[in-house]
Amino acid sequence: MKKLLIDQNNGELIKVKVKDVVFGGKEKVIISGPCSIESYDIMMRIGKELKDLGVHMLRGGAFKPRTSPYDFQGLKEEGLKIIKSVSEEINIPIVTEVMDARDIDNALNYTDMIQVGSRNMYNYTLLKELGRTNSPILLKRGLSATISEWICAAEYIMIEGNTNVVLCERGIRTFESYTRNTLDLNSVAVIKQKYRIPVIVDPSHGTGIRELVPSMSLASITAGADGLIIESHISPDNAVSDARQTVSMKSLENIIEGVKKLEQVF
Amino acid sequence: MKKLLIDQNNGELIKVKVKDVVFGGKEKVIISGPCSIESYDIMMRIGKELKDLGVHMLRGGAFKPRTSPYDFQGLKEEGLKIIKSVSEEINIPIVTEVMDARDIDNALNYTDMIQVGSRNMYNYTLLKELGRTNSPILLKRGLSATISEWICAAEYIMIEGNTNVVLCERGIRTFESYTRNTLDLNSVAVIKQKYRIPVIVDPSHGTGIRELVPSMSLASITAGADGLIIESHISPDNAVSDARQTVSMKSLENIIEGVKKLEQVF
Amino acid sequence: MKKLLIDQNNGELIKVKVKDVVFGGKEKVIISGPCSIESYDIMMRIGKELKDLGVHMLRGGAFKPRTSPYDFQGLKEEGLKIIKSVSEEINIPIVTEVMDARDIDNALNYTDMIQVGSRNMYNYTLLKELGRTNSPILLKRGLSATISEWICAAEYIMIEGNTNVVLCERGIRTFESYTRNTLDLNSVAVIKQKYRIPVIVDPSHGTGIRELVPSMSLASITAGADGLIIESHISPDNAVSDARQTVSMKSLENIIEGVKKLEQVF
Amino acid sequence: MKKLLIDQNNGELIKVKVKDVVFGGKEKVIISGPCSIESYDIMMRIGKELKDLGVHMLRGGAFKPRTSPYDFQGLKEEGLKIIKSVSEEINIPIVTEVMDARDIDNALNYTDMIQVGSRNMYNYTLLKELGRTNSPILLKRGLSATISEWICAAEYIMIEGNTNVVLCERGIRTFESYTRNTLDLNSVAVIKQKYRIPVIVDPSHGTGIRELVPSMSLASITAGADGLIIESHISPDNAVSDARQTVSMKSLENIIEGVKKLEQVF
Repeated sequence: MKKLLIDQNNGELIKVKVKDVVFGGKEKVIISGPCSIESYDIMMRIGKELKDLGVHMLRGGAFKPRTSPYDFQGLKEEGLKIIKSVSEEINIPIVTEVMDARDIDNALNYTDMIQVGSRNMYNYTLLKELGRTNSPILLKRGLSATISEWICAAEYIMIEGNTNVVLCERGIRTFESYTRNTLDLNSVAVIKQKYRIPVIVDPSHGTGIRELVPSMSLASITAGADGLIIESHISPDNAVSDARQTVSMKSLENIIEGVKKLEQVF
Repeated sequence: MKKLLIDQNNGELIKVKVKDVVFGGKEKVIISGPCSIESYDIMMRIGKELKDLGVHMLRGGAFKPRTSPYDFQGLKEEGLKIIKSVSEEINIPIVTEVMDARDIDNALNYTDMIQVGSRNMYNYTLLKELGRTNSPILLKRGLSATISEWICAAEYIMIEGNTNVVLCERGIRTFESYTRNTLDLNSVAVIKQKYRIPVIVDPSHGTGIRELVPSMSLASITAGADGLIIESHISPDNAVSDARQTVSMKSLENIIEGVKKLEQVF
Repeated sequence: MKKLLIDQNNGELIKVKVKDVVFGGKEKVIISGPCSIESYDIMMRIGKELKDLGVHMLRGGAFKPRTSPYDFQGLKEEGLKIIKSVSEEINIPIVTEVMDARDIDNALNYTDMIQVGSRNMYNYTLLKELGRTNSPILLKRGLSATISEWICAAEYIMIEGNTNVVLCERGIRTFESYTRNTLDLNSVAVIKQKYRIPVIVDPSHGTGIRELVPSMSLASITAGADGLIIESHISPDNAVSDARQTVSMKSLENIIEGVKKLEQVF
Repeated sequence: MKKLLIDQNNGELIKVKVKDVVFGGKEKVIISGPCSIESYDIMMRIGKELKDLGVHMLRGGAFKPRTSPYDFQGLKEEGLKIIKSVSEEINIPIVTEVMDARDIDNALNYTDMIQVGSRNMYNYTLLKELGRTNSPILLKRGLSATISEWICAAEYIMIEGNTNVVLCERGIRTFESYTRNTLDLNSVAVIKQKYRIPVIVDPSHGTGIRELVPSMSLASITAGADGLIIESHISPDNAVSDARQTVSMKSLENIIEGVKKLEQVF
């Protein structure tokens, strides 16, 4: 295999900037928000609380890839409009998922960073087109992608010219059924040692259990992660999707405090 | 969850027709051909030999999803043209993979059946658009998709109106590294008992080892599969991709003989 | 690694004899019986029915390894006595599991073949001591053992001098939760090609679902298995353990008929 | 299922004492030493260095369960004598593995804590007999044991009367082949929340790669682990087994410093 662009031996460590937010710097980046964008009111209330807690970026799904076609599929473009206006009013950058190459141009009108979800990590068509933009990309690991396939997916974006890629470990599929996925922090340690792009962790999908999110958030940072993406809600039990893994504002506040302490230690 | 269209309790067993070929009938369907379309000459020589062996449909990849962006990505539209003209000259229907919703219309000018590859099983955008055509679809199981996610992927196609869907078991990802994947024939038995669309098996990807393909082809048929899709080549060691799992014409002939015997027994 | 005794290049194919039953010959060996030995009466009724169906060997657990210490652990030595007297009265050899090296000598007073269960495949102490007997051994694959670890476990027995080893594929642990385990028939094809001892399949544990046992039994034979071990009961729903995967006498009869047909074809 | 003794709702948190070392207290316990006991001289040199670094307990394998019967199987009783005399001379408690119930009595003459290795987690005979001693037990998670099976294995020991059980997460078997195992720190968070016995982590087996051990050691502690067991050697590349995952004394020193910092923060 040709030498990969993403390899540490092929250039400097890459910092990815999303407005004022920097992935790969000294400060850990905290992204948070609900699984799905539900309404302007709820999104605004969540956004304000998160901003007050010091969260750096807002997340929220407009296009939701769901296992069953009968499940809620997201508010789509209406959702993008909602999160965009919240973002502008409270001045916080956003990240949201795009599932189809044809939606990229439009999405760039709304979002500051485009997420490639787990189910699309092998969607090489989508990756290549994202490589032709200069948008920051958040590339989630596939449900059962090897580290090396994940790295190659990033390379698909980078060889087209866009090196603004942030990886996101979100747990892998194993025989263990107690947790929704098995969060693989080994992968974070590998990436920090061998590759030159930032990596963050999604402990919400990585555990699937709200009570485990705080411990695993801090463990992720200690393993070397450059940030976290955490599903949160002002009323977690009423979230329209992924309620079981969504934390409260109070819980998120504790996590952020813990991250601050770790930043001072290491 | 709403009652699925694909459930056996929601209608008759579905037979999928591709020209004269019928999936889900008494006769088992054999699809074969090289991993990648390499050239007109090679494709024609392979096609003629396969036709003589009684193979029902020709396969060959024009758009190749590859883990590394530096690997051969297929001849693309040129490949489609090659396989189309071979198909017409020797009168054998073809199946080929489409990786992007924007390519569907054009692909339908060339192919008789569209394959959704493992990496795209969760590509719901692609599935929905295929559901709006009336083309027969070959839906491969995702690399680590559960049976129930795979069934839901078929449902994504069917609810748009296209019930011409054939499932294809191709092995799942496990800890076992002796074989490329672990062929899960349990899934075939489950589908034949509970769902109403045909299912075939790909023992080439399911094992990754040429020598195991004959035994696993026959085991698949005995487990209830409606057919097989097998990578073959006139010169397997020289195939430009997947050589290690590609069988010779002689080996394929033996497999077809075995299938015929099994058709008489059960 | 040193050349393994079990390798086909290191000697002739091995046939394992248990009284008149031969593993590795032309005829496929059918072993059946309840998961647990429950009482003399039930065991005798099951034994007689199985004998009438042409089953070659009787199985039944006396020492039951159970995940929870609060679950039924088997009738222990009383169970061995029961199965032994049934075996003698109806003249059918038996196989039963031993979990501790200290129990081997006593077990040999009762059983014709000793089973090493999945949980003990890595119990090298037990394997070595079994290698010092000349009892036929049925060595189940570990819950998530690789083919190569399983082969090495057989080698642990063989290097002590006992080559009467029969392997048993019983499914491996994967992310798929529809079935109890994922039956890995690739492993059967590998063993028949590279190693010189017989291999049978346990479709009961390999699927965990009674309705899938018939198809997977026949698929196992077609993949090359030398026999089957199937949990059956005169009243499957009332079996004290593993009821969900236990077949009825009628279902077993159909399976045996199917196996006979396959014996004539190949 | 009956209410488990190990459940937090069934009693106080348990602290396990091994001489002056306390598992489950404020201070994190560091266990270290070579994979295999090689000779008195090497063991003594390693032991002295570890003692100087503040390591609390010494590890070293005398009975080595190895996949292949042709691999080094350990110095056996000679190994026990070596580690015992090192332990006495430098005054540090030891932990070593026992693989057979018959060896327990003798092992108790030498060791302060008995380890149940991954391959023996389902060896219920061994677990029950250990439950009848009052020796502290280090119970490693099985290679692909679910959290709930692992908890039940501890319960097998506890119901016999011995509650001196410490769990040890050591990675599970997944499709990922970059690392030897996938270290599952979710399991640590689960145990600290729901169960009442201490849990430590083995990042050596959990990664299989020396360079990943420091990050994953600290991540383990942050996830809530009560301690670490780390393979180390004065000359890691010359270790007779597991060299690739064995850290140097210098690397271990850095890990211990990191742990101390984390103890002050949380």
